[in-house]
Amino acid sequence: MADTTYTPPKVWTWDAESGGKFASTNRPIAGATHDKELPVGKHPFQLYSLATPNGVKVTIMFEELLAAGHDAEYDAWLIDIGEGDQFGSGFVEINPNSKIPALLDRSRETPVRVFESGSILMHLAEKYGAFLPASGAARTETLNWLFWQMGSAPYLGGGFGHFYVYAPEKYEYPISRFAMEVKRQLDVLDRQLATRDFIAGENYTIADMAIWPWYGQLALGRTYDDAGTFLDVGSYEHVQRWAKAIDARPAVQRGRMVNRSFGEPEMQLHERHDAADFDTQTQDKIGS
Amino acid sequence: MADTTYTPPKVWTWDAESGGKFASTNRPIAGATHDKELPVGKHPFQLYSLATPNGVKVTIMFEELLAAGHDAEYDAWLIDIGEGDQFGSGFVEINPNSKIPALLDRSRETPVRVFESGSILMHLAEKYGAFLPASGAARTETLNWLFWQMGSAPYLGGGFGHFYVYAPEKYEYPISRFAMEVKRQLDVLDRQLATRDFIAGENYTIADMAIWPWYGQLALGRTYDDAGTFLDVGSYEHVQRWAKAIDARPAVQRGRMVNRSFGEPEMQLHERHDAADFDTQTQDKIGS
Repeated sequence: MADTTYTPPKVWTWDAESGGKFASTNRPIAGATHDKELPVGKHPFQLYSLATPNGVKVTIMFEELLAAGHDAEYDAWLIDIGEGDQFGSGFVEINPNSKIPALLDRSRETPVRVFESGSILMHLAEKYGAFLPASGAARTETLNWLFWQMGSAPYLGGGFGHFYVYAPEKYEYPISRFAMEVKRQLDVLDRQLATRDFIAGENYTIADMAIWPWYGQLALGRTYDDAGTFLDVGSYEHVQRWAKAIDARPAVQRGRMVNRSFGEPEMQLHERHDAADFDTQTQDKIGS
Repeated sequence: MADTTYTPPKVWTWDAESGGKFASTNRPIAGATHDKELPVGKHPFQLYSLATPNGVKVTIMFEELLAAGHDAEYDAWLIDIGEGDQFGSGFVEINPNSKIPALLDRSRETPVRVFESGSILMHLAEKYGAFLPASGAARTETLNWLFWQMGSAPYLGGGFGHFYVYAPEKYEYPISRFAMEVKRQLDVLDRQLATRDFIAGENYTIADMAIWPWYGQLALGRTYDDAGTFLDVGSYEHVQRWAKAIDARPAVQRGRMVNRSFGEPEMQLHERHDAADFDTQTQDKIGS
Protein backbone atom coordinates (compact mmCIF):
# COMPACT_ATOMS: atom_id res chain seq x y z
CA MET A 1 0.00 0.00 0.00
CA ALA A 2 1.17 3.49 -0.77
CA ASP A 3 -0.40 5.14 2.24
CA THR A 4 2.85 5.61 4.12
CA THR A 5 2.57 9.37 4.47
CA TYR A 6 -0.40 9.29 6.85
CA THR A 7 0.24 10.40 10.40
CA PRO A 8 -2.78 10.19 12.70
CA PRO A 9 -3.67 13.51 14.33
CA LYS A 10 -3.31 13.87 18.09
CA VAL A 11 -7.08 13.77 18.51
CA TRP A 12 -9.41 12.06 16.04
CA THR A 13 -12.21 14.21 14.58
CA TRP A 14 -15.32 13.16 12.69
CA ASP A 15 -15.43 13.64 8.95
CA ALA A 16 -19.06 12.82 8.19
CA GLU A 17 -18.29 12.54 4.47
CA SER A 18 -16.03 9.48 4.76
CA GLY A 19 -17.08 5.94 5.46
CA GLY A 20 -17.96 4.08 2.25
CA LYS A 21 -21.34 2.63 1.40
CA PHE A 22 -22.75 2.75 4.93
CA ALA A 23 -21.37 6.19 5.80
CA SER A 24 -24.82 7.55 6.64
CA THR A 25 -25.45 4.83 9.22
CA ASN A 26 -22.04 5.04 10.92
CA ARG A 27 -21.69 7.70 13.60
CA PRO A 28 -19.31 8.23 16.54
CA ILE A 29 -22.28 9.19 18.75
CA ALA A 30 -24.89 6.91 20.33
CA GLY A 31 -28.49 7.65 21.24
CA ALA A 32 -31.64 8.55 19.30
CA THR A 33 -31.61 11.02 16.42
CA HIS A 34 -35.40 11.39 16.17
CA ASP A 35 -38.63 10.53 17.95
CA LYS A 36 -40.33 7.44 16.60
CA GLU A 37 -42.51 4.90 18.36
CA LEU A 38 -42.25 1.26 17.37
CA PRO A 39 -45.30 -0.64 16.11
CA VAL A 40 -46.69 -3.33 18.43
CA GLY A 41 -48.66 -6.40 17.31
CA LYS A 42 -50.77 -8.95 19.11
CA HIS A 43 -48.17 -11.56 20.08
CA PRO A 44 -46.07 -11.72 23.27
CA PHE A 45 -42.86 -11.28 21.25
CA GLN A 46 -42.17 -8.17 19.21
CA LEU A 47 -39.10 -8.51 17.01
CA TYR A 48 -37.56 -5.49 15.29
CA SER A 49 -35.06 -6.72 12.75
CA LEU A 50 -33.73 -7.15 9.24
CA ALA A 51 -32.65 -10.35 7.46
CA THR A 52 -28.91 -9.82 7.78
CA PRO A 53 -27.05 -12.80 9.29
CA ASN A 54 -27.56 -11.45 12.80
CA GLY A 55 -31.27 -10.96 12.17
CA VAL A 56 -31.70 -14.39 10.58
CA LYS A 57 -30.30 -16.11 13.68
CA VAL A 58 -33.37 -15.03 15.63
CA THR A 59 -36.04 -15.67 12.99
CA ILE A 60 -34.61 -19.18 12.51
CA MET A 61 -34.89 -19.70 16.29
CA PHE A 62 -38.52 -18.56 16.36
CA GLU A 63 -39.43 -20.75 13.38
CA GLU A 64 -37.64 -23.75 14.89
CA LEU A 65 -39.44 -23.24 18.22
CA LEU A 66 -42.80 -23.08 16.42
CA ALA A 67 -41.92 -26.13 14.30
CA ALA A 68 -41.10 -28.03 17.51
CA GLY A 69 -44.55 -27.23 18.89
CA HIS A 70 -43.67 -24.42 21.28
CA ASP A 71 -46.04 -21.51 21.79
CA ALA A 72 -43.61 -18.89 20.45
CA GLU A 73 -45.74 -16.76 18.16
CA TYR A 74 -44.14 -13.46 17.24
CA ASP A 75 -44.60 -10.27 15.29
CA ALA A 76 -41.56 -9.37 13.18
CA TRP A 77 -41.24 -5.75 12.08
CA LEU A 78 -38.82 -4.48 9.46
CA ILE A 79 -36.10 -2.06 10.56
CA ASP A 80 -34.69 -0.21 7.56
CA ILE A 81 -31.13 0.58 8.62
CA GLY A 82 -30.50 2.52 5.40
CA GLU A 83 -33.27 4.89 6.51
CA GLY A 84 -31.91 5.14 10.07
CA ASP A 85 -34.81 3.33 11.78
CA GLN A 86 -32.30 2.03 14.33
CA PHE A 87 -31.78 5.57 15.59
CA GLY A 88 -35.47 6.15 16.38
CA SER A 89 -36.29 6.75 20.05
CA GLY A 90 -38.44 3.64 20.38
CA PHE A 91 -35.76 1.38 18.95
CA VAL A 92 -33.00 2.90 21.09
CA GLU A 93 -35.09 2.23 24.21
CA ILE A 94 -35.02 -1.48 23.36
CA ASN A 95 -31.46 -1.52 22.07
CA PRO A 96 -29.25 1.40 23.16
CA ASN A 97 -26.62 0.01 20.76
CA SER A 98 -28.84 0.79 17.70
CA LYS A 99 -28.29 -2.54 15.99
CA ILE A 100 -30.72 -5.17 14.79
CA PRO A 101 -32.06 -7.56 16.01
CA ALA A 102 -33.91 -6.22 19.06
CA LEU A 103 -36.70 -8.01 20.90
CA LEU A 104 -39.39 -6.91 23.32
CA ASP A 105 -40.64 -9.81 25.45
CA ARG A 106 -44.12 -8.88 26.67
CA SER A 107 -44.89 -12.32 28.07
CA ARG A 108 -44.11 -11.12 31.59
CA GLU A 109 -45.92 -8.50 33.63
CA THR A 110 -43.18 -5.98 32.92
CA PRO A 111 -41.90 -6.14 29.34
CA VAL A 112 -38.22 -7.04 29.05
CA ARG A 113 -35.85 -5.70 26.41
CA VAL A 114 -33.47 -8.19 24.83
CA PHE A 115 -30.70 -7.13 22.47
CA GLU A 116 -27.65 -8.71 20.84
CA SER A 117 -28.52 -11.78 18.79
CA GLY A 118 -26.65 -14.09 21.17
CA SER A 119 -28.59 -12.77 24.15
CA ILE A 120 -31.89 -13.21 22.30
CA LEU A 121 -31.02 -16.82 21.46
CA MET A 122 -30.12 -17.47 25.13
CA HIS A 123 -33.30 -15.78 26.35
CA LEU A 124 -35.56 -17.88 24.11
CA ALA A 125 -33.61 -21.11 24.68
CA GLU A 126 -33.89 -20.73 28.46
CA LYS A 127 -37.55 -19.70 28.31
CA TYR A 128 -38.57 -22.77 26.30
CA GLY A 129 -35.90 -25.21 27.48
CA ALA A 130 -35.04 -25.83 23.83
CA PHE A 131 -31.90 -26.04 21.68
CA LEU A 132 -29.63 -25.49 24.71
CA PRO A 133 -28.96 -28.20 27.33
CA ALA A 134 -29.97 -27.01 30.81
CA SER A 135 -26.72 -28.11 32.49
CA GLY A 136 -23.57 -30.16 32.20
CA ALA A 137 -20.82 -30.48 29.64
CA ALA A 138 -23.22 -30.25 26.68
CA ARG A 139 -24.47 -26.86 27.87
CA THR A 140 -20.91 -25.60 28.31
CA GLU A 141 -19.84 -26.79 24.85
CA THR A 142 -22.90 -25.15 23.26
CA LEU A 143 -22.10 -21.85 24.98
CA ASN A 144 -18.41 -22.14 24.01
CA TRP A 145 -19.46 -22.09 20.37
CA LEU A 146 -22.20 -19.49 20.80
CA PHE A 147 -19.63 -17.11 22.27
CA TRP A 148 -17.11 -18.16 19.63
CA GLN A 149 -19.51 -16.93 16.98
CA MET A 150 -20.09 -13.61 18.72
CA GLY A 151 -16.39 -12.88 18.97
CA SER A 152 -15.44 -14.26 15.53
CA ALA A 153 -18.06 -12.93 13.11
CA PRO A 154 -16.98 -9.27 13.47
CA TYR A 155 -13.84 -10.33 11.59
CA LEU A 156 -16.04 -11.73 8.84
CA GLY A 157 -18.66 -8.95 8.71
CA GLY A 158 -17.02 -5.79 10.02
CA GLY A 159 -13.60 -6.88 8.79
CA PHE A 160 -13.53 -9.01 5.66
CA GLY A 161 -16.95 -8.13 4.24
CA HIS A 162 -16.48 -4.42 4.77
CA PHE A 163 -13.08 -4.21 3.11
CA TYR A 164 -13.78 -6.76 0.35
CA VAL A 165 -17.12 -5.23 -0.72
CA TYR A 166 -18.19 -2.02 0.99
CA ALA A 167 -15.12 0.15 1.63
CA PRO A 168 -14.72 3.07 -0.80
CA GLU A 169 -11.55 1.52 -2.27
CA LYS A 170 -9.86 -1.89 -2.34
CA TYR A 171 -7.10 -1.83 0.26
CA GLU A 172 -4.79 -4.84 0.06
CA TYR A 173 -3.57 -5.12 3.64
CA PRO A 174 -6.97 -5.16 5.41
CA ILE A 175 -8.49 -7.50 2.80
CA SER A 176 -5.64 -9.96 3.17
CA ARG A 177 -5.55 -9.72 6.96
CA PHE A 178 -9.25 -10.44 7.34
CA ALA A 179 -9.31 -13.09 4.57
CA MET A 180 -6.64 -15.01 6.47
CA GLU A 181 -8.60 -14.84 9.71
CA VAL A 182 -11.87 -15.91 8.10
CA LYS A 183 -10.15 -18.88 6.46
CA ARG A 184 -8.72 -19.84 9.85
CA GLN A 185 -12.22 -19.63 11.34
CA LEU A 186 -13.64 -21.82 8.56
CA ASP A 187 -10.89 -24.34 9.27
CA VAL A 188 -11.73 -24.30 12.99
CA LEU A 189 -15.33 -25.15 12.10
CA ASP A 190 -14.31 -27.75 9.51
CA ARG A 191 -12.21 -29.67 12.04
CA GLN A 192 -14.97 -29.47 14.64
CA LEU A 193 -17.58 -30.73 12.15
CA ALA A 194 -15.34 -33.57 10.91
CA THR A 195 -16.43 -35.74 13.83
CA ARG A 196 -19.84 -34.33 14.77
CA ASP A 197 -23.15 -33.76 12.98
CA PHE A 198 -23.59 -30.35 14.55
CA ILE A 199 -21.29 -27.72 16.02
CA ALA A 200 -21.63 -28.70 19.66
CA GLY A 201 -22.16 -32.43 19.18
CA GLU A 202 -24.96 -34.69 17.93
CA ASN A 203 -27.75 -32.22 18.60
CA TYR A 204 -28.83 -29.11 16.72
CA THR A 205 -28.49 -26.13 19.09
CA ILE A 206 -28.45 -22.35 19.22
CA ALA A 207 -24.73 -22.59 18.39
CA ASP A 208 -25.67 -23.86 14.91
CA MET A 209 -28.36 -21.19 14.61
CA ALA A 210 -25.79 -18.50 15.46
CA ILE A 211 -22.98 -19.79 13.25
CA TRP A 212 -24.89 -20.92 10.14
CA PRO A 213 -26.22 -17.49 9.04
CA TRP A 214 -22.63 -16.21 8.90
CA TYR A 215 -20.35 -19.14 8.06
CA GLY A 216 -22.91 -21.52 6.56
CA GLN A 217 -24.20 -18.93 4.14
CA LEU A 218 -20.64 -17.86 3.33
CA ALA A 219 -19.85 -21.51 2.54
CA LEU A 220 -22.93 -21.65 0.28
CA GLY A 221 -21.60 -18.67 -1.68
CA ARG A 222 -24.43 -16.34 -0.73
CA THR A 223 -22.53 -13.48 0.85
CA TYR A 224 -20.10 -10.77 -0.22
CA ASP A 225 -20.26 -11.16 -4.00
CA ASP A 226 -17.66 -13.73 -5.12
CA ALA A 227 -16.15 -14.20 -1.66
CA GLY A 228 -16.91 -17.91 -1.89
CA THR A 229 -14.37 -18.23 -4.69
CA PHE A 230 -11.90 -15.81 -3.11
CA LEU A 231 -11.89 -17.78 0.14
CA ASP A 232 -12.14 -21.19 -1.58
CA VAL A 233 -15.07 -22.18 0.60
CA GLY A 234 -15.57 -25.43 -1.33
CA SER A 235 -12.43 -26.84 0.26
CA TYR A 236 -14.05 -26.98 3.72
CA GLU A 237 -15.93 -30.21 3.09
CA HIS A 238 -17.40 -30.75 6.54
CA VAL A 239 -18.63 -27.16 6.69
CA GLN A 240 -20.21 -27.75 3.27
CA ARG A 241 -22.07 -30.86 4.46
CA TRP A 242 -23.32 -29.10 7.60
CA ALA A 243 -24.26 -25.89 5.76
CA LYS A 244 -26.39 -27.82 3.26
CA ALA A 245 -28.08 -29.92 5.95
CA ILE A 246 -29.16 -26.85 7.87
CA ASP A 247 -30.15 -25.00 4.73
CA ALA A 248 -32.61 -27.81 3.95
CA ARG A 249 -34.57 -27.36 7.19
CA PRO A 250 -38.02 -25.85 6.52
CA ALA A 251 -37.77 -23.61 9.60
CA VAL A 252 -34.47 -22.24 8.33
CA GLN A 253 -35.99 -21.51 4.93
CA ARG A 254 -38.83 -19.60 6.61
CA GLY A 255 -36.45 -17.83 8.97
CA ARG A 256 -34.38 -16.56 6.04
CA MET A 257 -37.46 -14.90 4.50
CA VAL A 258 -38.60 -12.91 7.53
CA ASN A 259 -37.73 -9.19 7.47
CA ARG A 260 -35.95 -9.62 4.14
CA SER A 261 -36.13 -6.50 1.99
CA PHE A 262 -33.39 -7.27 -0.51
CA GLY A 263 -32.43 -10.00 -2.99
CA GLU A 264 -34.87 -12.26 -4.82
CA PRO A 265 -38.48 -11.03 -4.49
CA GLU A 266 -39.84 -14.52 -3.72
CA MET A 267 -37.62 -14.66 -0.62
CA GLN A 268 -38.94 -11.39 0.83
CA LEU A 269 -41.44 -11.38 3.68
CA HIS A 270 -41.06 -7.83 4.99
CA GLU A 271 -43.19 -8.42 8.08
CA ARG A 272 -44.32 -11.62 9.74
CA HIS A 273 -47.35 -11.77 12.04
CA ASP A 274 -48.75 -15.24 11.40
CA ALA A 275 -47.62 -18.62 10.08
CA ALA A 276 -49.93 -18.14 7.10
CA ASP A 277 -47.96 -15.07 6.01
CA PHE A 278 -45.45 -17.36 4.32
CA ASP A 279 -48.14 -18.96 2.15
CA THR A 280 -49.65 -15.60 1.21
CA GLN A 281 -46.26 -14.26 0.24
CA THR A 282 -45.51 -17.27 -1.94
CA GLN A 283 -48.93 -17.12 -3.64
CA ASP A 284 -48.56 -13.41 -4.31
CA LYS A 285 -45.27 -14.04 -6.04
CA ILE A 286 -46.57 -16.99 -8.02
CA GLY A 287 -49.56 -14.95 -9.10
CA SER A 288 -47.54 -11.92 -10.10
CA MET B 1 -5.32 6.62 0.42
CA ALA B 2 -3.32 5.97 -2.71
CA ASP B 3 -4.02 2.25 -2.88
CA THR B 4 -6.44 2.45 -5.79
CA THR B 5 -4.52 0.15 -8.07
CA TYR B 6 -5.08 -3.02 -6.00
CA THR B 7 -7.35 -5.63 -7.53
CA PRO B 8 -7.93 -8.70 -5.36
CA PRO B 9 -6.98 -11.96 -7.07
CA LYS B 10 -9.72 -14.44 -7.89
CA VAL B 11 -8.53 -16.73 -5.09
CA TRP B 12 -6.69 -15.46 -2.00
CA THR B 13 -3.32 -17.08 -1.25
CA TRP B 14 -1.26 -16.96 1.91
CA ASP B 15 1.82 -14.76 2.00
CA ALA B 16 3.40 -15.81 5.28
CA GLU B 17 5.68 -12.76 5.26
CA SER B 18 2.89 -10.18 5.58
CA GLY B 19 0.89 -9.42 8.68
CA GLY B 20 2.61 -6.81 10.84
CA LYS B 21 3.79 -7.31 14.39
CA PHE B 22 1.85 -10.50 15.05
CA ALA B 23 2.51 -12.10 11.66
CA SER B 24 4.02 -15.22 13.21
CA THR B 25 0.88 -15.91 15.27
CA ASN B 26 -1.62 -15.31 12.46
CA ARG B 27 -2.30 -18.27 10.17
CA PRO B 28 -5.13 -19.23 7.80
CA ILE B 29 -5.04 -22.80 9.17
CA ALA B 30 -6.40 -24.11 12.48
CA GLY B 31 -5.20 -27.06 14.55
CA ALA B 32 -2.01 -27.91 16.45
CA THR B 33 1.44 -27.20 15.02
CA HIS B 34 3.36 -29.29 17.58
CA ASP B 35 2.88 -31.79 20.39
CA LYS B 36 2.90 -30.23 23.83
CA GLU B 37 1.09 -31.31 26.98
CA LEU B 38 -0.24 -28.67 29.32
CA PRO B 39 0.88 -28.51 32.95
CA VAL B 40 -1.71 -29.44 35.57
CA GLY B 41 -1.77 -28.19 39.16
CA LYS B 42 -3.63 -29.24 42.29
CA HIS B 43 -6.82 -27.17 42.04
CA PRO B 44 -10.10 -28.09 40.31
CA PHE B 45 -9.67 -25.22 37.85
CA GLN B 46 -6.75 -25.06 35.42
CA LEU B 47 -6.56 -21.75 33.59
CA TYR B 48 -4.27 -21.31 30.56
CA SER B 49 -4.07 -17.63 29.79
CA LEU B 50 -2.26 -14.33 29.39
CA ALA B 51 -3.12 -10.93 30.91
CA THR B 52 -4.59 -9.38 27.76
CA PRO B 53 -8.07 -7.87 28.25
CA ASN B 54 -9.73 -11.21 27.42
CA GLY B 55 -7.49 -13.01 29.88
CA VAL B 56 -8.02 -10.45 32.62
CA LYS B 57 -11.80 -10.90 32.47
CA VAL B 58 -11.40 -14.42 33.85
CA THR B 59 -8.73 -13.77 36.48
CA ILE B 60 -10.86 -10.90 37.80
CA MET B 61 -13.80 -13.30 38.03
CA PHE B 62 -11.77 -15.90 39.95
CA GLU B 63 -10.39 -13.29 42.34
CA GLU B 64 -13.87 -11.81 42.88
CA LEU B 65 -15.30 -15.28 43.59
CA LEU B 66 -12.54 -15.97 46.11
CA ALA B 67 -13.00 -12.52 47.70
CA ALA B 68 -16.72 -13.25 48.08
CA GLY B 69 -15.90 -16.46 49.97
CA HIS B 70 -16.49 -19.02 47.23
CA ASP B 71 -14.32 -22.11 46.98
CA ALA B 72 -12.91 -21.22 43.56
CA GLU B 73 -9.20 -21.93 43.90
CA TYR B 74 -7.37 -22.12 40.60
CA ASP B 75 -4.03 -22.69 38.96
CA ALA B 76 -3.20 -20.09 36.31
CA TRP B 77 -0.56 -21.02 33.73
CA LEU B 78 1.07 -18.58 31.34
CA ILE B 79 0.49 -19.08 27.61
CA ASP B 80 3.12 -17.23 25.60
CA ILE B 81 1.33 -16.41 22.35
CA GLY B 82 4.50 -14.91 20.86
CA GLU B 83 6.09 -18.36 21.23
CA GLY B 84 3.07 -20.14 19.74
CA ASP B 85 1.99 -21.94 22.94
CA GLN B 86 -1.62 -21.62 21.74
CA PHE B 87 -0.82 -23.99 18.87
CA GLY B 88 0.40 -26.81 21.14
CA SER B 89 -1.66 -30.01 21.01
CA GLY B 90 -2.73 -29.82 24.66
CA PHE B 91 -3.96 -26.27 24.31
CA VAL B 92 -5.84 -26.97 21.07
CA GLU B 93 -7.65 -29.84 22.78
CA ILE B 94 -9.07 -27.37 25.30
CA ASN B 95 -9.58 -24.56 22.81
CA PRO B 96 -9.71 -25.56 19.13
CA ASN B 97 -9.75 -21.83 18.32
CA SER B 98 -6.18 -21.39 19.71
CA LYS B 99 -6.95 -18.24 21.69
CA ILE B 100 -6.53 -17.42 25.35
CA PRO B 101 -8.16 -17.76 27.83
CA ALA B 102 -8.93 -21.49 28.03
CA LEU B 103 -10.13 -23.31 31.14
CA LEU B 104 -10.24 -26.94 32.16
CA ASP B 105 -12.87 -27.58 34.84
CA ARG B 106 -11.84 -30.74 36.68
CA SER B 107 -14.44 -30.36 39.42
CA ARG B 108 -16.67 -32.93 37.72
CA GLU B 109 -16.04 -36.62 37.13
CA THR B 110 -15.27 -35.91 33.47
CA PRO B 111 -13.24 -32.74 32.95
CA VAL B 112 -14.99 -30.09 30.88
CA ARG B 113 -13.27 -27.73 28.47
CA VAL B 114 -14.42 -24.10 28.53
CA PHE B 115 -13.23 -21.56 25.97
CA GLU B 116 -14.14 -18.03 24.94
CA SER B 117 -13.93 -15.57 27.81
CA GLY B 118 -17.69 -14.97 27.76
CA SER B 119 -18.39 -18.67 28.05
CA ILE B 120 -15.93 -19.01 30.94
CA LEU B 121 -17.62 -16.13 32.79
CA MET B 122 -21.03 -17.78 32.24
CA HIS B 123 -19.72 -21.18 33.35
CA LEU B 124 -18.31 -19.84 36.61
CA ALA B 125 -21.28 -17.54 37.29
CA GLU B 126 -23.73 -20.42 36.90
CA LYS B 127 -21.59 -22.81 38.93
CA TYR B 128 -21.36 -20.46 41.92
CA GLY B 129 -24.62 -18.56 41.47
CA ALA B 130 -22.64 -15.35 41.58
CA PHE B 131 -22.42 -12.09 39.60
CA LEU B 132 -25.28 -13.16 37.29
CA PRO B 133 -28.95 -13.19 38.39
CA ALA B 134 -30.45 -16.67 38.02
CA SER B 135 -33.58 -15.47 36.20
CA GLY B 136 -35.78 -12.54 35.31
CA ALA B 137 -35.17 -9.18 33.70
CA ALA B 138 -31.91 -8.61 35.58
CA ARG B 139 -30.42 -11.81 34.12
CA THR B 140 -31.51 -10.80 30.62
CA GLU B 141 -30.04 -7.31 30.94
CA THR B 142 -26.74 -8.73 32.23
CA LEU B 143 -26.54 -11.11 29.28
CA ASN B 144 -27.47 -8.32 26.84
CA TRP B 145 -24.34 -6.48 27.90
CA LEU B 146 -22.14 -9.56 28.15
CA PHE B 147 -22.97 -10.38 24.52
CA TRP B 148 -22.62 -6.70 23.60
CA GLN B 149 -19.02 -6.85 24.79
CA MET B 150 -18.26 -10.02 22.83
CA GLY B 151 -19.56 -8.55 19.61
CA SER B 152 -18.15 -5.04 20.12
CA ALA B 153 -14.59 -5.51 21.38
CA PRO B 154 -13.31 -7.02 18.09
CA TYR B 155 -13.77 -3.51 16.64
CA LEU B 156 -11.60 -2.16 19.46
CA GLY B 157 -8.95 -4.90 19.54
CA GLY B 158 -8.86 -6.50 16.10
CA GLY B 159 -9.92 -3.27 14.40
CA PHE B 160 -8.80 -0.05 16.07
CA GLY B 161 -5.90 -1.41 18.12
CA HIS B 162 -4.46 -3.38 15.24
CA PHE B 163 -4.50 -0.53 12.74
CA TYR B 164 -3.57 2.21 15.21
CA VAL B 165 -0.60 0.37 16.74
CA TYR B 166 0.32 -2.99 15.22
CA ALA B 167 -0.22 -2.86 11.44
CA PRO B 168 2.98 -2.48 9.39
CA GLU B 169 1.94 1.00 8.21
CA LYS B 170 -0.53 3.68 9.27
CA TYR B 171 -3.55 3.40 6.98
CA GLU B 172 -5.96 6.32 7.32
CA TYR B 173 -9.24 4.72 6.30
CA PRO B 174 -9.18 1.71 8.67
CA ILE B 175 -7.91 3.82 11.59
CA SER B 176 -10.67 6.37 11.11
CA ARG B 177 -13.37 3.76 10.54
CA PHE B 178 -12.55 1.87 13.72
CA ALA B 179 -11.93 5.02 15.78
CA MET B 180 -15.44 6.19 14.93
CA GLU B 181 -16.95 2.86 15.98
CA VAL B 182 -15.00 2.70 19.25
CA LYS B 183 -16.11 6.24 20.11
CA ARG B 184 -19.71 5.24 19.41
CA GLN B 185 -19.28 2.23 21.72
CA LEU B 186 -17.83 4.44 24.47
CA ASP B 187 -20.83 6.74 24.08
CA VAL B 188 -23.22 3.77 24.34
CA LEU B 189 -21.57 2.85 27.64
CA ASP B 190 -21.49 6.46 28.84
CA ARG B 191 -25.24 6.87 28.36
CA GLN B 192 -25.93 3.52 30.05
CA LEU B 193 -23.73 4.43 33.03
CA ALA B 194 -25.26 7.91 33.39
CA THR B 195 -28.15 6.47 35.40
CA ARG B 196 -26.69 3.27 36.88
CA ASP B 197 -23.74 2.40 39.10
CA PHE B 198 -22.85 -0.63 36.98
CA ILE B 199 -23.44 -1.69 33.39
CA ALA B 200 -26.51 -3.82 33.98
CA GLY B 201 -27.97 -1.89 36.92
CA GLU B 202 -27.17 -1.42 40.60
CA ASN B 203 -25.19 -4.64 40.96
CA TYR B 204 -21.68 -5.55 39.83
CA THR B 205 -21.94 -8.45 37.38
CA ILE B 206 -20.01 -10.45 34.81
CA ALA B 207 -21.03 -7.76 32.31
CA ASP B 208 -18.77 -5.30 34.15
CA MET B 209 -16.01 -7.89 34.37
CA ALA B 210 -16.21 -8.44 30.60
CA ILE B 211 -16.42 -4.77 29.59
CA TRP B 212 -13.98 -3.17 32.02
CA PRO B 213 -10.76 -4.89 30.81
CA TRP B 214 -11.41 -3.48 27.31
CA TYR B 215 -13.30 -0.21 27.68
CA GLY B 216 -12.46 0.62 31.29
CA GLN B 217 -8.74 0.23 30.72
CA LEU B 218 -9.02 2.16 27.45
CA ALA B 219 -10.72 4.97 29.39
CA LEU B 220 -7.91 4.89 31.95
CA GLY B 221 -5.37 5.41 29.15
CA ARG B 222 -3.67 2.05 29.59
CA THR B 223 -4.06 0.56 26.12
CA TYR B 224 -2.78 1.22 22.60
CA ASP B 225 -0.13 3.86 23.31
CA ASP B 226 -1.74 7.32 23.23
CA ALA B 227 -5.16 6.06 22.12
CA GLY B 228 -6.69 7.69 25.19
CA THR B 229 -5.83 11.10 23.78
CA PHE B 230 -6.68 10.15 20.19
CA LEU B 231 -10.17 8.99 21.23
CA ASP B 232 -10.64 11.74 23.84
CA VAL B 233 -11.60 9.19 26.48
CA GLY B 234 -11.74 11.86 29.19
CA SER B 235 -14.94 13.20 27.67
CA TYR B 236 -16.90 10.08 28.66
CA GLU B 237 -17.44 11.14 32.26
CA HIS B 238 -19.68 8.29 33.40
CA VAL B 239 -17.35 5.71 31.89
CA GLN B 240 -14.52 7.46 33.75
CA ARG B 241 -16.33 7.23 37.10
CA TRP B 242 -17.18 3.54 36.57
CA ALA B 243 -13.69 2.65 35.28
CA LYS B 244 -12.05 4.15 38.36
CA ALA B 245 -14.48 2.51 40.78
CA ILE B 246 -13.80 -0.94 39.34
CA ASP B 247 -10.07 -0.31 39.12
CA ALA B 248 -10.03 0.31 42.88
CA ARG B 249 -11.39 -3.14 43.75
CA PRO B 250 -8.67 -5.34 45.34
CA ALA B 251 -9.83 -8.41 43.37
CA VAL B 252 -9.48 -6.45 40.14
CA GLN B 253 -5.97 -5.37 41.08
CA ARG B 254 -5.04 -9.00 41.74
CA GLY B 255 -6.78 -10.18 38.58
CA ARG B 256 -4.75 -7.76 36.47
CA MET B 257 -1.47 -9.25 37.78
CA VAL B 258 -2.18 -12.90 37.00
CA ASN B 259 -0.46 -14.28 33.86
CA ARG B 260 1.03 -10.86 33.13
CA SER B 261 4.39 -11.10 31.38
CA PHE B 262 4.71 -7.56 30.08
CA GLY B 263 4.67 -4.00 31.43
CA GLU B 264 5.77 -2.90 34.90
CA PRO B 265 7.65 -5.73 36.72
CA GLU B 266 5.75 -5.19 39.98
CA MET B 267 2.49 -6.00 38.17
CA GLN B 268 3.72 -9.36 36.83
CA LEU B 269 2.65 -12.63 38.41
CA HIS B 270 3.45 -15.09 35.63
CA GLU B 271 1.72 -18.02 37.31
CA ARG B 272 -0.77 -18.12 40.14
CA HIS B 273 -1.33 -21.22 42.28
CA ASP B 274 -2.16 -19.79 45.70
CA ALA B 275 -3.51 -16.59 47.23
CA ALA B 276 -0.13 -16.10 48.89
CA ASP B 277 1.56 -15.85 45.48
CA PHE B 278 0.54 -12.19 45.30
CA ASP B 279 2.38 -11.39 48.54
CA THR B 280 5.50 -13.30 47.49
CA GLN B 281 5.55 -11.52 44.17
CA THR B 282 5.26 -8.12 45.82
CA GLN B 283 8.02 -8.93 48.34
CA ASP B 284 10.32 -10.19 45.59
CA LYS B 285 9.95 -6.95 43.74
CA ILE B 286 10.41 -4.82 46.82
CA GLY B 287 13.51 -6.80 47.64
CA SER B 288 14.95 -6.63 44.15
